[in-house]
Amino acid sequence: MPKSLEEMRQRVYEANVALPEHGLVKFTWGNVSEVCRELGRIVIKPSGVDYDRLSPENMVVTDLDGNVVEGELNPSSDLATHVALYKAWPEIGAVVHTHSTEAVGWAQAGRDIPFYGTTHADYFYGPIPCARSLTAEEVDTAYEKETGSVIIETFAERGIDPVAVPGIVVRNHGPFTWGKDPAQAVYHSVVLEEVAKMNRFTEQINPRVEPAPKYIMDKHYLRKHGPNAYYGQKGDEH
Amino acid sequence: MPKSLEEMRQRVYEANVALPEHGLVKFTWGNVSEVCRELGRIVIKPSGVDYDRLSPENMVVTDLDGNVVEGELNPSSDLATHVALYKAWPEIGAVVHTHSTEAVGWAQAGRDIPFYGTTHADYFYGPIPCARSLTAEEVDTAYEKETGSVIIETFAERGIDPVAVPGIVVRNHGPFTWGKDPAQAVYHSVVLEEVAKMNRFTEQINPRVEPAPKYIMDKHYLRKHGPNAYYGQKGDEH
Amino acid sequence: MPKSLEEMRQRVYEANVALPEHGLVKFTWGNVSEVCRELGRIVIKPSGVDYDRLSPENMVVTDLDGNVVEGELNPSSDLATHVALYKAWPEIGAVVHTHSTEAVGWAQAGRDIPFYGTTHADYFYGPIPCARSLTAEEVDTAYEKETGSVIIETFAERGIDPVAVPGIVVRNHGPFTWGKDPAQAVYHSVVLEEVAKMNRFTEQINPRVEPAPKYIMDKHYLRKHGPNAYYGQKGDEH
Amino acid sequence: MPKSLEEMRQRVYEANVALPEHGLVKFTWGNVSEVCRELGRIVIKPSGVDYDRLSPENMVVTDLDGNVVEGELNPSSDLATHVALYKAWPEIGAVVHTHSTEAVGWAQAGRDIPFYGTTHADYFYGPIPCARSLTAEEVDTAYEKETGSVIIETFAERGIDPVAVPGIVVRNHGPFTWGKDPAQAVYHSVVLEEVAKMNRFTEQINPRVEPAPKYIMDKHYLRKHGPNAYYGQKGDEH
Repeated sequence: MPKSLEEMRQRVYEANVALPEHGLVKFTWGNVSEVCRELGRIVIKPSGVDYDRLSPENMVVTDLDGNVVEGELNPSSDLATHVALYKAWPEIGAVVHTHSTEAVGWAQAGRDIPFYGTTHADYFYGPIPCARSLTAEEVDTAYEKETGSVIIETFAERGIDPVAVPGIVVRNHGPFTWGKDPAQAVYHSVVLEEVAKMNRFTEQINPRVEPAPKYIMDKHYLRKHGPNAYYGQKGDEH
Repeated sequence: MPKSLEEMRQRVYEANVALPEHGLVKFTWGNVSEVCRELGRIVIKPSGVDYDRLSPENMVVTDLDGNVVEGELNPSSDLATHVALYKAWPEIGAVVHTHSTEAVGWAQAGRDIPFYGTTHADYFYGPIPCARSLTAEEVDTAYEKETGSVIIETFAERGIDPVAVPGIVVRNHGPFTWGKDPAQAVYHSVVLEEVAKMNRFTEQINPRVEPAPKYIMDKHYLRKHGPNAYYGQKGDEH
Repeated sequence: MPKSLEEMRQRVYEANVALPEHGLVKFTWGNVSEVCRELGRIVIKPSGVDYDRLSPENMVVTDLDGNVVEGELNPSSDLATHVALYKAWPEIGAVVHTHSTEAVGWAQAGRDIPFYGTTHADYFYGPIPCARSLTAEEVDTAYEKETGSVIIETFAERGIDPVAVPGIVVRNHGPFTWGKDPAQAVYHSVVLEEVAKMNRFTEQINPRVEPAPKYIMDKHYLRKHGPNAYYGQKGDEH
Repeated sequence: MPKSLEEMRQRVYEANVALPEHGLVKFTWGNVSEVCRELGRIVIKPSGVDYDRLSPENMVVTDLDGNVVEGELNPSSDLATHVALYKAWPEIGAVVHTHSTEAVGWAQAGRDIPFYGTTHADYFYGPIPCARSLTAEEVDTAYEKETGSVIIETFAERGIDPVAVPGIVVRNHGPFTWGKDPAQAVYHSVVLEEVAKMNRFTEQINPRVEPAPKYIMDKHYLRKHGPNAYYGQKGDEH
């Protein structure tokens, strides 16, 4: 059953304003979108509009190729990245991009965020990868679309399931996360930022730290996800 | 005299909502419980419920083995850790678990939090230990219960009194604290987090720093605790 | 067309009170001014007055040499630095000085803030320079004016366009930023502080990090600035 | 002319509640006092009382030796340190003690806070010293009084004027600041904390950083202090 466009506008609006509330963005430095493939529609934040001027009504609606079909404002300039991810990964329903400080630290450092503990494993089943920088040619031809391509390439080459590892940092740029809906995608952005900070502290306190055991990752991820999950209340999804 | 179950619900509720107010948890990443051994009851936060949806009424009541006796929600998935600590240590009345950022830094680094100064000694009479990681077998058989076991094992092997050192970080996981009641257990979580941060700064400023003298620990701990304490007002406990 | 002095007072007032709101200043440690060359006037914060006692009315008005022409309060003691920048750079309309913590870290460290990523390139087209310390003679003769001179000297010697790189840190002192109007100059102070923090994290996470590729700087700067910009809404300036 | 005891109560109350507002204390971890030598009175915060339960009325009044003369509550357990400083330094009118995080970092690291820039020189005319740890004998005989003695000893041995350098960190403990009145003493605590943070960042960004030139210290301190000061408004003191 296709989603209601009105409810998508509302969810995308709420998810966008949640970004500054969680301390993930300054000014207009972030954007959230949601897709409905049956409806053939993507709803995304307009470009460069202050968070306090956003409303469900001024969200921009596009088709699945990113052509604007409703709304008088330009869509987020990162739209083509969102479109690329939706095309590659039918399992995901929403995408978030921010310049959150701790995640950018790892992106600029060009490093994967290692698996050091249970906070990480509760939501990311493996290290959070760092995608390579775009080449000059990729930047010059279709920058935002190619940003999506290097993300997809990273997951494909390493054989990572984007549902099990719902986020990445792009080298010299910043984090992208995704989820089944806008709220979950924002949740993953909060987790990624928090884990990025915890891991910076961890390496500062013990520069020779090693990744945590794989069986701890399995336990924590699987007590929250999949058929045998027992965290939370019956019927909840996490 | 047994406690009032109604008052326990209220105290456990208030202690749980104090966690985000002190900046110790994001989302649902923390839990507080209280025990009354005479009453044969433990009151604990339900699992995965947002802090703003908590109330004294939806706290979960279990027996001393952790079997739910009141409440329709699942108890915190960490309940078995709380139960293990209550069984091992009759002196304690409440337990707190969080994923507070600075404490997790030390947990993931796999290091005890050293004694560097008086803020630490006012509440923790010695280094705050880091428990070992669980083995694959412990994780697979009874993860949450065994988390309690490694905490208890750490205190026993090192001969530490859990009343004098009311907290620990568990390797690759995070902090647990306890106290005579929920408010004190939360207080100890705040202290642990603050000392974890101070000590990170201390080692950054002076990488060759040594622990502070034992006689300073004695003085600061004993001016607040025990028969000769003189901090605070008559009749207060600290 | 000359600006309205009344509107300048209002803008300068609003920009000054925005500084503590953005966490850039404590107490009275910051100041914003605006110039109108046609009107022959500069409007600047009074010296050492608490932010909550500021009003559009008590902003100080000077001529283009910094002589007070309206207002009973002393102008900011940094006025002569602002005057020097306005004389050297006809393109700029407003100046901000703060002691924001992260930027001061780089100023005291005596290092340029390197170009590591897109957050930086969205607003600063190249590394943010660190001006040299003043000499004893410069400090003794006309400290505040000479602070302006070393800033101007830094841009001239390195051939940097102050519109493309709208800020600097002065060694052993702190940051100055500028823009077409007070709001944009404050915006640049926020960006400079955030990039200073991101880059501190980046070097901590990867001590051997190298600057990002020049073509990424070109792409991000030019998608927001100049005739081919496509970020934001038609008619907006960024 | 002696001060009004009522006004002292009000000022000391306001200064104490300002500490958590400035983020300098958690719980009850700080205290402010004021002295009037003509009146023969010290007003100080009661020990271990939450900041939200403080009022001008429950401040404790003592004589110049620290004997309580008014009030039913115990004075701050650090009173003897305040008394020692008032006896040694007739120029000061108020004392503040906190466990603020960044300052404790330097105290625990056992290092003076170096002079790296103008923020420091605006209020502290030289490095902020770190006093030695107390000996076991000093701790055992009169801990709080001897804390005052090592502070006084540090200034005497190094020939530092406590008016020009209105604060210190005590090894393994934390910061003390002072001033002509409670508000100024609190102001100095805020500056000390901020400079402690800036300098931690500075050494992280450039581990080989050297102190700033002495003539910059002279300029910045003397444009705010002494007969030739020109910062702020006529009649203000800074």
